[in-house]
Amino acid sequence: MGNLEIIGIEGIGEISDGDSLAEIISAAAATQGSPLRADDCLVVTQKVVSKAEGRLVALDHDDTEGRLALIEAESHRILRRRDDLVISETKHGFICANAGIDLSNVDDGVVALLPKDGDTSAHRIRNAIRALAGIEIGVVISDTFGRAWRHGLTDVAIGVAGLAAILDLRGENDSRGRELRVTEVALADEVAGAAELVMGKALGIPAAIVRGLEAAWFVDGSVRDLIRPAHDDLFR
Amino acid sequence: MGNLEIIGIEGIGEISDGDSLAEIISAAAATQGSPLRADDCLVVTQKVVSKAEGRLVALDHDDTEGRLALIEAESHRILRRRDDLVISETKHGFICANAGIDLSNVDDGVVALLPKDGDTSAHRIRNAIRALAGIEIGVVISDTFGRAWRHGLTDVAIGVAGLAAILDLRGENDSRGRELRVTEVALADEVAGAAELVMGKALGIPAAIVRGLEAAWFVDGSVRDLIRPAHDDLFR
Repeated sequence: MGNLEIIGIEGIGEISDGDSLAEIISAAAATQGSPLRADDCLVVTQKVVSKAEGRLVALDHDDTEGRLALIEAESHRILRRRDDLVISETKHGFICANAGIDLSNVDDGVVALLPKDGDTSAHRIRNAIRALAGIEIGVVISDTFGRAWRHGLTDVAIGVAGLAAILDLRGENDSRGRELRVTEVALADEVAGAAELVMGKALGIPAAIVRGLEAAWFVDGSVRDLIRPAHDDLFR
Repeated sequence: MGNLEIIGIEGIGEISDGDSLAEIISAAAATQGSPLRADDCLVVTQKVVSKAEGRLVALDHDDTEGRLALIEAESHRILRRRDDLVISETKHGFICANAGIDLSNVDDGVVALLPKDGDTSAHRIRNAIRALAGIEIGVVISDTFGRAWRHGLTDVAIGVAGLAAILDLRGENDSRGRELRVTEVALADEVAGAAELVMGKALGIPAAIVRGLEAAWFVDGSVRDLIRPAHDDLFR
């Protein structure tokens, strides 16, 4: 069993609409002496993906009504509301605060919406890295979500390409040969959370390499695999 | 910003009631050439902690009624029930399946209960490592929980010692000097999830070193910090 290495990528700088994240990130990784390799998983935060994809909207940060209208426009349905916090189901099916709309690390008077389709964003980066460097990598787009029952936020996947989102270990045996019962591991979410440990929130490191994941895990998953169908959800 | 290394510890073998996990794990880590160092965070899975603490109970795996009775005895309250899956709040305050009772990787006719107090378990290991090796480390006891809204299980912390459970970044500035609004990161949960990536479920690696976490994060947290109070929980 190999070890895992998690490498924050520094020097990425400000990202603008139309920038090639694949070019910028792979150049920054090479510059700091840790170029991307085959079977790396590259984790990229929502914020820079949204910026590169032009998912910015003018909104005064003090305009509460305008923000609520925007959250509604980005949501499939509103679940809960208290003061200026709204929990909704986004059009992607994510349950998160404020429809994932991001006010920090964006210019004054501008907010960042979630990428339209995180899997597409991830595939775009993965394909561009293949074209640039001739290597196959996994890509996870990450964002910071709250959770039911537990305090504190964790980074989770909002887009996946070239990596299993869920590892289905059902049917594999435990160390005593007994069949494991319920073990579907949310691989892409754990990868996103692991990457967050080197990215920090205030440090301007919007991407990280997770190196050393099992080769067999690099199959094509989708963030849709991480959305739990209502009929299956006894936790909510 | 340093990189992070996650090192699975092999060769730990079967654990019995009364075993010193600190001795066994630190010996195994040294044997494989990765001895524990100061400011490592050692992640240990619930299963071996429960075994070392004698938290085993006789129960035929096919005895559905006996299992339900045991889940009730270990629970503060039952939240949901369907077929043989029960979601309950354990006496620790965790919301999880089957009160965290573990049937896999235990002898036939025996199940493992959660440690009585995960923080105490973590402190015991941390103190014993200090006594053995003269180093200060963080310890996280991990278990595999399901979640509301999202499919797939992730490893989370059920006990913490010598590491912040939550990183409170409120009041710190983002890269543009604007105050970050809501950023309480569930550090111990992300550390547990990251460690899971090298431990696997069927591979017999019940402990891992997470090396390279910020020195400032090694303050004394508690798993209680990770339990979200009901009045604060719009996600459930």
